[in-house]
Amino acid sequence: MAAYALRVRYAETDQMGVAHHAAYIPWLEAARIDWLRQAGHSYRALESAGLFMPVITVQVRYRKAARFDDELEIDTEAQATGPSRVAFRSQVRRGSELLAEAEVVVAAVDGTGRPVRIPASLLPALTPG
Amino acid sequence: MAAYALRVRYAETDQMGVAHHAAYIPWLEAARIDWLRQAGHSYRALESAGLFMPVITVQVRYRKAARFDDELEIDTEAQATGPSRVAFRSQVRRGSELLAEAEVVVAAVDGTGRPVRIPASLLPALTPG
Amino acid sequence: MAAYALRVRYAETDQMGVAHHAAYIPWLEAARIDWLRQAGHSYRALESAGLFMPVITVQVRYRKAARFDDELEIDTEAQATGPSRVAFRSQVRRGSELLAEAEVVVAAVDGTGRPVRIPASLLPALTPG
Amino acid sequence: MAAYALRVRYAETDQMGVAHHAAYIPWLEAARIDWLRQAGHSYRALESAGLFMPVITVQVRYRKAARFDDELEIDTEAQATGPSRVAFRSQVRRGSELLAEAEVVVAAVDGTGRPVRIPASLLPALTPG
Repeated sequence: MAAYALRVRYAETDQMGVAHHAAYIPWLEAARIDWLRQAGHSYRALESAGLFMPVITVQVRYRKAARFDDELEIDTEAQATGPSRVAFRSQVRRGSELLAEAEVVVAAVDGTGRPVRIPASLLPALTPG
Repeated sequence: MAAYALRVRYAETDQMGVAHHAAYIPWLEAARIDWLRQAGHSYRALESAGLFMPVITVQVRYRKAARFDDELEIDTEAQATGPSRVAFRSQVRRGSELLAEAEVVVAAVDGTGRPVRIPASLLPALTPG
Repeated sequence: MAAYALRVRYAETDQMGVAHHAAYIPWLEAARIDWLRQAGHSYRALESAGLFMPVITVQVRYRKAARFDDELEIDTEAQATGPSRVAFRSQVRRGSELLAEAEVVVAAVDGTGRPVRIPASLLPALTPG
Repeated sequence: MAAYALRVRYAETDQMGVAHHAAYIPWLEAARIDWLRQAGHSYRALESAGLFMPVITVQVRYRKAARFDDELEIDTEAQATGPSRVAFRSQVRRGSELLAEAEVVVAAVDGTGRPVRIPASLLPALTPG
Protein backbone atom coordinates (compact mmCIF):
# COMPACT_ATOMS: atom_id res chain seq x y z
CA MET A 1 0.00 0.00 0.00
CA ALA A 2 1.01 3.58 -0.39
CA ALA A 3 3.03 5.02 2.48
CA TYR A 4 1.40 7.49 4.85
CA ALA A 5 3.08 10.90 4.52
CA LEU A 6 3.46 13.58 7.15
CA ARG A 7 5.56 16.60 7.93
CA VAL A 8 7.02 17.05 11.44
CA ARG A 9 5.26 19.89 13.26
CA TYR A 10 7.16 22.44 15.32
CA ALA A 11 5.02 21.55 18.35
CA GLU A 12 6.31 17.97 18.02
CA THR A 13 9.94 18.96 18.62
CA ASP A 14 11.59 19.07 22.04
CA GLN A 15 14.53 20.92 23.49
CA MET A 16 16.94 18.26 22.19
CA GLY A 17 16.08 19.78 18.79
CA VAL A 18 14.39 16.67 17.41
CA ALA A 19 10.90 15.24 17.19
CA HIS A 20 9.99 14.05 20.68
CA HIS A 21 9.62 10.27 20.94
CA ALA A 22 5.99 10.60 22.05
CA ALA A 23 5.08 12.35 18.78
CA TYR A 24 5.54 9.11 16.85
CA ILE A 25 2.60 7.45 18.60
CA PRO A 26 -0.11 9.62 16.98
CA TRP A 27 1.78 9.37 13.65
CA LEU A 28 1.67 5.58 13.84
CA GLU A 29 -2.03 5.74 14.66
CA ALA A 30 -2.71 8.04 11.70
CA ALA A 31 -0.77 5.59 9.52
CA ARG A 32 -2.92 2.67 10.76
CA ILE A 33 -6.09 4.62 10.05
CA ASP A 34 -4.76 5.44 6.60
CA TRP A 35 -3.95 1.75 6.09
CA LEU A 36 -7.56 0.89 6.98
CA ARG A 37 -8.80 3.52 4.54
CA GLN A 38 -6.66 2.09 1.76
CA ALA A 39 -8.05 -1.33 2.65
CA GLY A 40 -11.51 0.10 2.09
CA HIS A 41 -12.47 0.83 5.70
CA SER A 42 -13.19 4.10 7.43
CA TYR A 43 -12.26 3.76 11.09
CA ARG A 44 -14.86 6.44 11.80
CA ALA A 45 -17.51 4.25 10.14
CA LEU A 46 -16.26 1.15 12.00
CA GLU A 47 -16.66 2.98 15.33
CA SER A 48 -20.11 4.21 14.32
CA ALA A 49 -20.99 0.59 13.59
CA GLY A 50 -19.82 -0.37 17.09
CA LEU A 51 -16.34 -1.75 16.35
CA PHE A 52 -13.44 -0.25 18.32
CA MET A 53 -9.74 -1.01 18.11
CA PRO A 54 -8.06 -0.09 21.40
CA VAL A 55 -4.30 -0.45 21.54
CA ILE A 56 -3.02 -3.42 23.57
CA THR A 57 0.73 -3.04 23.11
CA VAL A 58 3.09 -0.51 21.59
CA GLN A 59 6.71 -1.18 20.74
CA VAL A 60 8.89 1.41 19.05
CA ARG A 61 12.56 1.28 18.24
CA TYR A 62 14.04 4.71 17.49
CA ARG A 63 17.04 4.55 15.16
CA LYS A 64 17.62 8.09 13.92
CA ALA A 65 16.10 11.39 14.96
CA ALA A 66 13.40 13.10 12.92
CA ARG A 67 13.62 16.88 12.78
CA PHE A 68 11.22 19.79 12.44
CA ASP A 69 9.77 20.14 8.94
CA ASP A 70 11.11 16.76 7.81
CA GLU A 71 8.83 15.01 5.38
CA LEU A 72 8.39 11.48 6.60
CA GLU A 73 6.70 8.38 5.27
CA ILE A 74 5.31 5.46 7.21
CA ASP A 75 4.96 2.03 5.62
CA THR A 76 2.54 -0.20 7.46
CA GLU A 77 1.45 -3.79 7.14
CA ALA A 78 -0.96 -5.73 9.28
CA GLN A 79 -1.33 -9.33 10.34
CA ALA A 80 -4.03 -11.13 12.29
CA THR A 81 -2.50 -12.58 15.46
CA GLY A 82 -5.77 -13.99 16.80
CA PRO A 83 -9.48 -13.89 15.99
CA SER A 84 -9.76 -10.39 17.45
CA ARG A 85 -6.17 -9.14 17.35
CA VAL A 86 -4.25 -7.34 14.63
CA ALA A 87 -0.54 -6.50 14.76
CA PHE A 88 0.46 -3.47 12.72
CA ARG A 89 4.14 -3.26 11.80
CA SER A 90 5.41 0.09 10.60
CA GLN A 91 8.58 1.70 9.42
CA VAL A 92 9.04 5.44 9.72
CA ARG A 93 11.29 6.69 6.94
CA ARG A 94 12.79 9.94 5.70
CA GLY A 95 13.39 9.08 2.09
CA SER A 96 15.47 5.91 2.21
CA GLU A 97 16.62 6.43 5.81
CA LEU A 98 14.91 4.25 8.41
CA LEU A 99 14.14 6.40 11.46
CA ALA A 100 12.01 4.05 13.54
CA GLU A 101 10.30 0.69 13.55
CA ALA A 102 7.15 -0.08 15.45
CA GLU A 103 4.69 -2.82 16.23
CA VAL A 104 1.29 -1.88 17.60
CA VAL A 105 -1.21 -4.58 18.51
CA VAL A 106 -4.88 -3.64 18.63
CA ALA A 107 -7.89 -5.63 19.76
CA ALA A 108 -11.24 -5.61 17.99
CA VAL A 109 -13.93 -5.00 20.62
CA ASP A 110 -17.53 -3.91 20.78
CA GLY A 111 -18.85 -0.89 22.66
CA THR A 112 -18.72 -2.78 25.95
CA GLY A 113 -15.09 -3.80 25.48
CA ARG A 114 -15.91 -7.42 24.63
CA PRO A 115 -13.63 -8.98 21.95
CA VAL A 116 -15.25 -9.42 18.56
CA ARG A 117 -14.01 -11.06 15.39
CA ILE A 118 -11.98 -8.98 12.96
CA PRO A 119 -14.41 -8.01 10.16
CA ALA A 120 -14.15 -10.55 7.35
CA SER A 121 -13.86 -7.72 4.87
CA LEU A 122 -10.53 -6.76 6.44
CA LEU A 123 -8.96 -10.20 6.14
CA PRO A 124 -7.81 -9.95 2.52
CA ALA A 125 -5.69 -6.90 3.42
CA LEU A 126 -3.86 -8.73 6.21
CA THR A 127 -0.54 -10.40 5.50
CA PRO A 128 -0.37 -14.15 6.14
CA GLY A 129 0.78 -15.11 9.67
CA MET B 1 -8.53 29.75 46.02
CA ALA B 2 -5.30 27.82 46.08
CA ALA B 3 -3.22 28.02 42.92
CA TYR B 4 -3.00 24.98 40.65
CA ALA B 5 0.57 23.65 40.61
CA LEU B 6 2.34 21.81 37.82
CA ARG B 7 5.83 20.99 36.65
CA VAL B 8 6.77 21.50 32.98
CA ARG B 9 7.20 18.13 31.25
CA TYR B 10 10.07 17.45 28.85
CA ALA B 11 7.55 16.52 26.15
CA GLU B 12 6.09 20.03 26.49
CA THR B 13 9.32 21.73 25.41
CA ASP B 14 10.16 22.62 21.83
CA GLN B 15 13.38 23.19 19.94
CA MET B 16 13.48 26.83 21.06
CA GLY B 17 14.29 25.30 24.47
CA VAL B 18 11.13 26.50 26.19
CA ALA B 19 7.65 25.18 26.89
CA HIS B 20 5.76 25.27 23.60
CA HIS B 21 2.90 27.77 23.57
CA ALA B 22 0.36 25.01 22.89
CA ALA B 23 1.29 23.27 26.16
CA TYR B 24 -0.35 26.06 28.17
CA ILE B 25 -3.82 25.18 26.87
CA PRO B 26 -4.10 21.84 28.69
CA TRP B 27 -2.51 23.47 31.78
CA LEU B 28 -5.19 26.14 31.79
CA GLU B 29 -7.86 23.48 31.41
CA ALA B 30 -6.44 21.48 34.33
CA ALA B 31 -6.43 24.69 36.38
CA ARG B 32 -10.12 25.32 35.53
CA ILE B 33 -11.01 21.77 36.53
CA ASP B 34 -9.08 22.23 39.76
CA TRP B 35 -10.93 25.51 40.34
CA LEU B 36 -14.24 23.65 39.92
CA ARG B 37 -13.07 20.99 42.36
CA GLN B 38 -12.15 23.61 44.94
CA ALA B 39 -15.60 25.14 44.38
CA GLY B 40 -17.09 21.77 45.27
CA HIS B 41 -17.69 20.41 41.78
CA SER B 42 -16.19 17.45 40.00
CA TYR B 43 -16.19 18.16 36.26
CA ARG B 44 -16.35 14.39 35.75
CA ALA B 45 -19.54 14.28 37.81
CA LEU B 46 -20.96 17.31 35.97
CA GLU B 47 -20.41 15.54 32.63
CA SER B 48 -21.97 12.35 33.99
CA ALA B 49 -24.97 14.46 35.00
CA GLY B 50 -25.20 15.80 31.44
CA LEU B 51 -23.52 19.19 31.81
CA PHE B 52 -20.65 19.95 29.43
CA MET B 53 -18.45 23.04 29.23
CA PRO B 54 -17.01 23.35 25.73
CA VAL B 55 -14.53 26.15 25.16
CA ILE B 56 -15.86 29.09 23.14
CA THR B 57 -12.84 31.39 23.12
CA VAL B 58 -9.23 31.20 24.23
CA GLN B 59 -6.96 34.19 24.65
CA VAL B 60 -3.42 33.86 25.94
CA ARG B 61 -0.75 36.50 26.32
CA TYR B 62 2.73 35.01 26.71
CA ARG B 63 5.09 37.28 28.67
CA LYS B 64 8.05 35.13 29.66
CA ALA B 65 9.06 31.64 28.66
CA ALA B 66 8.52 28.64 30.93
CA ARG B 67 11.26 26.04 30.87
CA PHE B 68 11.55 22.30 31.35
CA ASP B 69 11.17 21.22 34.98
CA ASP B 70 9.96 24.65 36.09
CA GLU B 71 7.42 24.49 38.87
CA LEU B 72 4.54 26.73 37.87
CA GLU B 73 1.39 27.92 39.56
CA ILE B 74 -1.84 29.01 37.94
CA ASP B 75 -4.23 31.37 39.73
CA THR B 76 -7.72 31.28 38.29
CA GLU B 77 -10.90 33.19 38.91
CA ALA B 78 -14.24 32.88 37.16
CA GLN B 79 -17.06 35.21 36.33
CA ALA B 80 -20.47 34.61 34.79
CA THR B 81 -20.73 36.55 31.53
CA GLY B 82 -24.22 35.32 30.66
CA PRO B 83 -26.74 32.76 31.93
CA SER B 84 -24.76 29.93 30.34
CA ARG B 85 -21.29 31.44 29.96
CA VAL B 86 -18.35 31.57 32.34
CA ALA B 87 -15.11 33.46 31.72
CA PHE B 88 -12.07 32.01 33.48
CA ARG B 89 -9.15 34.39 33.94
CA SER B 90 -5.82 32.86 34.82
CA GLN B 91 -2.28 33.90 35.54
CA VAL B 92 0.55 31.45 35.00
CA ARG B 93 3.36 32.19 37.43
CA ARG B 94 6.81 30.89 38.32
CA GLY B 95 7.11 32.11 41.88
CA SER B 96 6.44 35.84 41.66
CA GLU B 97 7.17 36.06 37.92
CA LEU B 98 4.15 36.37 35.66
CA LEU B 99 4.68 34.13 32.62
CA ALA B 100 1.30 34.31 30.91
CA GLU B 101 -2.23 35.61 31.27
CA ALA B 102 -5.26 33.94 29.80
CA GLU B 103 -8.98 34.24 29.46
CA VAL B 104 -10.97 31.18 28.46
CA VAL B 105 -14.73 31.42 27.99
CA VAL B 106 -16.77 28.24 28.26
CA ALA B 107 -20.43 27.60 27.61
CA ALA B 108 -22.63 25.40 29.76
CA VAL B 109 -24.49 23.02 27.44
CA ASP B 110 -26.38 19.75 27.67
CA GLY B 111 -25.51 16.57 25.83
CA THR B 112 -27.12 17.87 22.63
CA GLY B 113 -25.11 21.10 22.71
CA ARG B 114 -28.05 23.25 23.82
CA PRO B 115 -27.14 26.04 26.27
CA VAL B 116 -28.20 25.43 29.85
CA ARG B 117 -28.03 27.63 32.92
CA ILE B 118 -24.85 27.59 34.99
CA PRO B 119 -25.63 25.37 38.01
CA ALA B 120 -26.83 27.54 40.89
CA SER B 121 -24.39 25.79 43.18
CA LEU B 122 -21.52 27.28 41.17
CA LEU B 123 -22.69 30.87 41.43
CA PRO B 124 -21.26 31.63 44.89
CA ALA B 125 -17.75 30.81 43.61
CA LEU B 126 -18.00 33.24 40.69
CA THR B 127 -16.65 36.75 41.07
CA PRO B 128 -19.15 39.59 40.58
CA GLY B 129 -19.40 40.90 37.00
CA MET C 1 -2.42 31.61 -0.98
CA ALA C 2 -3.48 28.00 -0.98
CA ALA C 3 -5.16 26.79 2.20
CA TYR C 4 -3.27 24.46 4.52
CA ALA C 5 -4.96 21.05 4.62
CA LEU C 6 -5.02 18.56 7.46
CA ARG C 7 -7.01 15.60 8.68
CA VAL C 8 -8.07 15.40 12.34
CA ARG C 9 -6.11 12.68 14.15
CA TYR C 10 -7.74 10.28 16.58
CA ALA C 11 -5.28 11.37 19.27
CA GLU C 12 -6.62 14.91 18.85
CA THR C 13 -10.15 13.98 19.93
CA ASP C 14 -11.39 14.12 23.50
CA GLN C 15 -14.16 12.39 25.40
CA MET C 16 -16.71 14.96 24.21
CA GLY C 17 -16.22 13.21 20.84
CA VAL C 18 -14.72 16.21 19.07
CA ALA C 19 -11.28 17.62 18.36
CA HIS C 20 -9.98 19.04 21.64
CA HIS C 21 -9.59 22.81 21.61
CA ALA C 22 -5.85 22.55 22.31
CA ALA C 23 -5.33 20.59 19.09
CA TYR C 24 -6.02 23.68 17.01
CA ILE C 25 -2.89 25.44 18.29
CA PRO C 26 -0.38 23.16 16.53
CA TRP C 27 -2.64 23.19 13.43
CA LEU C 28 -2.52 26.98 13.34
CA GLU C 29 1.25 26.86 13.75
CA ALA C 30 1.60 24.37 10.91
CA ALA C 31 -0.58 26.67 8.78
CA ARG C 32 1.69 29.66 9.58
CA ILE C 33 4.76 27.66 8.64
CA ASP C 34 3.06 26.61 5.42
CA TRP C 35 2.17 30.26 4.76
CA LEU C 36 5.85 31.17 5.18
CA ARG C 37 6.83 28.37 2.81
CA GLN C 38 4.39 29.62 0.18
CA ALA C 39 5.86 33.10 0.68
CA GLY C 40 9.25 31.63 -0.16
CA HIS C 41 10.60 31.11 3.36
CA SER C 42 11.52 27.97 5.20
CA TYR C 43 11.00 28.57 8.93
CA ARG C 44 13.68 25.94 9.52
CA ALA C 45 16.11 27.99 7.43
CA LEU C 46 15.07 31.21 9.20
CA GLU C 47 15.85 29.63 12.58
CA SER C 48 19.17 28.32 11.28
CA ALA C 49 19.94 31.89 10.22
CA GLY C 50 19.16 33.10 13.75
CA LEU C 51 15.62 34.41 13.31
CA PHE C 52 12.98 33.06 15.70
CA MET C 53 9.27 33.81 15.85
CA PRO C 54 7.98 33.13 19.36
CA VAL C 55 4.26 33.50 19.91
CA ILE C 56 3.20 36.60 21.85
CA THR C 57 -0.58 36.21 21.85
CA VAL C 58 -3.08 33.58 20.77
CA GLN C 59 -6.78 34.20 20.31
CA VAL C 60 -9.12 31.53 19.05
CA ARG C 61 -12.87 31.61 18.64
CA TYR C 62 -14.40 28.15 18.30
CA ARG C 63 -17.64 28.15 16.32
CA LYS C 64 -18.33 24.55 15.39
CA ALA C 65 -16.70 21.33 16.47
CA ALA C 66 -14.24 19.47 14.27
CA ARG C 67 -14.48 15.69 14.40
CA PHE C 68 -12.12 12.76 13.99
CA ASP C 69 -11.07 12.15 10.39
CA ASP C 70 -12.54 15.46 9.20
CA GLU C 71 -10.56 17.03 6.39
CA LEU C 72 -9.99 20.65 7.34
CA GLU C 73 -8.48 23.62 5.60
CA ILE C 74 -6.89 26.66 7.17
CA ASP C 75 -6.73 29.97 5.33
CA THR C 76 -4.13 32.32 6.72
CA GLU C 77 -3.11 35.88 6.04
CA ALA C 78 -0.46 37.97 7.76
CA GLN C 79 0.00 41.62 8.53
CA ALA C 80 2.90 43.55 10.05
CA THR C 81 1.72 45.19 13.26
CA GLY C 82 5.12 46.69 14.14
CA PRO C 83 8.71 46.51 12.91
CA SER C 84 9.17 43.13 14.56
CA ARG C 85 5.61 41.88 14.95
CA VAL C 86 3.41 39.91 12.59
CA ALA C 87 -0.26 39.10 13.19
CA PHE C 88 -1.49 35.93 11.49
CA ARG C 89 -5.25 35.67 11.00
CA SER C 90 -6.62 32.24 10.19
CA GLN C 91 -9.91 30.58 9.47
CA VAL C 92 -10.30 26.87 10.08
CA ARG C 93 -12.85 25.44 7.66
CA ARG C 94 -14.47 22.13 6.82
CA GLY C 95 -15.51 22.75 3.25
CA SER C 96 -17.54 25.93 3.39
CA GLU C 97 -18.27 25.67 7.12
CA LEU C 98 -16.29 28.01 9.36
CA LEU C 99 -15.17 26.05 12.44
CA ALA C 100 -12.83 28.53 14.12
CA GLU C 101 -11.16 31.88 13.69
CA ALA C 102 -7.80 32.76 15.17
CA GLU C 103 -5.28 35.53 15.49
CA VAL C 104 -1.75 34.67 16.52
CA VAL C 105 0.82 37.41 16.96
CA VAL C 106 4.49 36.48 16.73
CA ALA C 107 7.60 38.53 17.37
CA ALA C 108 10.72 38.39 15.24
CA VAL C 109 13.68 37.94 17.59
CA ASP C 110 17.30 36.86 17.42
CA GLY C 111 18.83 33.96 19.33
CA THR C 112 19.07 36.08 22.49
CA GLY C 113 15.40 37.06 22.36
CA ARG C 114 16.08 40.62 21.18
CA PRO C 115 13.53 42.00 18.68
CA VAL C 116 14.75 42.21 15.10
CA ARG C 117 13.14 43.63 12.00
CA ILE C 118 10.88 41.40 9.96
CA PRO C 119 12.98 40.24 6.98
CA ALA C 120 12.39 42.58 4.04
CA SER C 121 11.84 39.60 1.81
CA LEU C 122 8.71 38.76 3.81
CA LEU C 123 7.11 42.18 3.46
CA PRO C 124 5.56 41.69 0.02
CA ALA C 125 3.57 38.72 1.33
CA LEU C 126 2.07 40.73 4.19
CA THR C 127 -1.32 42.37 3.75
CA PRO C 128 -1.43 46.15 4.16
CA GLY C 129 -2.19 47.32 7.72
CA MET D 1 11.31 5.00 45.71
CA ALA D 2 8.11 6.94 46.03
CA ALA D 3 5.68 6.55 43.15
CA TYR D 4 5.20 9.42 40.72
CA ALA D 5 1.64 10.76 40.99
CA LEU D 6 -0.43 12.41 38.30
CA ARG D 7 -4.04 13.17 37.47
CA VAL D 8 -5.38 12.41 33.98
CA ARG D 9 -6.03 15.66 32.09
CA TYR D 10 -9.14 16.19 29.98
CA ALA D 11 -6.93 16.92 26.97
CA GLU D 12 -5.44 13.44 27.37
CA THR D 13 -8.76 11.67 26.78
CA ASP D 14 -10.00 10.56 23.37
CA GLN D 15 -13.41 9.86 21.90
CA MET D 16 -13.37 6.32 23.28
CA GLY D 17 -13.79 8.08 26.63
CA VAL D 18 -10.45 6.98 28.07
CA ALA D 19 -6.92 8.33 28.29
CA HIS D 20 -5.41 8.01 24.81
CA HIS D 21 -2.56 5.50 24.63
CA ALA D 22 -0.12 8.21 23.49
CA ALA D 23 -0.69 10.16 26.71
CA TYR D 24 1.18 7.52 28.71
CA ILE D 25 4.48 8.28 26.98
CA PRO D 26 4.95 11.75 28.53
CA TRP D 27 3.71 10.35 31.86
CA LEU D 28 6.38 7.64 31.78
CA GLU D 29 8.99 10.28 30.91
CA ALA D 30 7.89 12.48 33.82
CA ALA D 31 8.13 9.41 36.08
CA ARG D 32 11.70 8.73 34.87
CA ILE D 33 12.68 12.32 35.52
CA ASP D 34 11.12 12.10 38.96
CA TRP D 35 13.04 8.85 39.55
CA LEU D 36 16.27 10.66 38.65
CA ARG D 37 15.36 13.48 41.02
CA GLN D 38 14.76 11.04 43.87
CA ALA D 39 18.12 9.46 43.02
CA GLY D 40 19.69 12.90 43.51
CA HIS D 41 19.88 14.01 39.89
CA SER D 42 18.19 16.85 38.10
CA TYR D 43 17.79 15.89 34.44
CA ARG D 44 17.85 19.60 33.65
CA ALA D 45 21.26 19.86 35.34
CA LEU D 46 22.49 16.70 33.55
CA GLU D 47 21.56 18.24 30.18
CA SER D 48 23.23 21.51 31.13
CA ALA D 49 26.35 19.48 31.93
CA GLY D 50 26.19 17.89 28.47
CA LEU D 51 24.58 14.55 29.26
CA PHE D 52 21.45 13.63 27.28
CA MET D 53 19.25 10.56 27.54
CA PRO D 54 17.44 10.00 24.24
CA VAL D 55 14.93 7.17 24.14
CA ILE D 56 16.02 4.09 22.19
CA THR D 57 13.03 1.81 22.66
CA VAL D 58 9.57 2.09 24.16
CA GLN D 59 7.36 -0.86 25.03
CA VAL D 60 4.00 -0.42 26.70
CA ARG D 61 1.39 -3.03 27.54
CA TYR D 62 -2.01 -1.50 28.22
CA ARG D 63 -4.13 -3.63 30.60
CA LYS D 64 -6.98 -1.40 31.76
CA ALA D 65 -8.11 2.02 30.64
CA ALA D 66 -7.32 5.15 32.62
CA ARG D 67 -10.08 7.76 32.70
CA PHE D 68 -10.31 11.52 32.95
CA ASP D 69 -9.54 12.84 36.42
CA ASP D 70 -8.19 9.49 37.64
CA GLU D 71 -5.35 9.82 40.10
CA LEU D 72 -2.60 7.50 38.93
CA GLU D 73 0.72 6.44 40.31
CA ILE D 74 3.75 5.21 38.43
CA ASP D 75 6.33 2.98 40.08
CA THR D 76 9.64 2.96 38.27
CA GLU D 77 12.87 1.09 38.66
CA ALA D 78 16.00 1.27 36.54
CA GLN D 79 18.73 -1.12 35.54
CA ALA D 80 21.94 -0.63 33.60
CA THR D 81 21.84 -2.78 30.47
CA GLY D 82 25.20 -1.63 29.15
CA PRO D 83 27.83 1.01 29.93
CA SER D 84 25.66 3.73 28.39
CA ARG D 85 22.17 2.20 28.50
CA VAL D 86 19.54 2.25 31.18
CA ALA D 87 16.25 0.31 31.07
CA PHE D 88 13.44 1.89 33.06
CA ARG D 89 10.59 -0.45 34.01
CA SER D 90 7.37 1.17 35.15
CA GLN D 91 3.94 0.18 36.33
CA VAL D 92 1.07 2.60 35.95
CA ARG D 93 -1.46 2.02 38.72
CA ARG D 94 -4.79 3.40 39.90
CA GLY D 95 -4.66 2.45 43.53
CA SER D 96 -4.01 -1.29 43.49
CA GLU D 97 -5.17 -1.78 39.89
CA LEU D 98 -2.42 -2.26 37.33
CA LEU D 99 -3.30 -0.22 34.23
CA ALA D 100 -0.13 -0.51 32.16
CA GLU D 101 3.41 -1.81 32.23
CA ALA D 102 6.25 -0.26 30.31
CA GLU D 103 9.92 -0.59 29.56
CA VAL D 104 11.78 2.39 28.15
CA VAL D 105 15.46 2.11 27.28
CA VAL D 106 17.49 5.30 27.12
CA ALA D 107 21.06 5.89 26.01
CA ALA D 108 23.49 8.21 27.75
CA VAL D 109 25.05 10.44 25.08
CA ASP D 110 26.94 13.71 24.86
CA GLY D 111 25.86 16.76 22.92
CA THR D 112 27.10 15.24 19.67
CA GLY D 113 25.12 12.02 20.20
CA ARG D 114 28.17 9.94 21.10
CA PRO D 115 27.56 7.32 23.83
CA VAL D 116 29.02 8.17 27.22
CA ARG D 117 29.19 6.18 30.44
CA ILE D 118 26.28 6.37 32.84
CA PRO D 119 27.36 8.78 35.59
CA ALA D 120 28.89 6.81 38.45
CA SER D 121 26.72 8.72 40.88
CA LEU D 122 23.65 7.12 39.31
CA LEU D 123 24.85 3.55 39.68
CA PRO D 124 23.81 3.01 43.32
CA ALA D 125 20.19 3.78 42.37
CA LEU D 126 20.13 1.14 39.64
CA THR D 127 18.84 -2.33 40.41
CA PRO D 128 21.27 -5.21 39.85
CA GLY D 129 21.11 -6.76 36.37
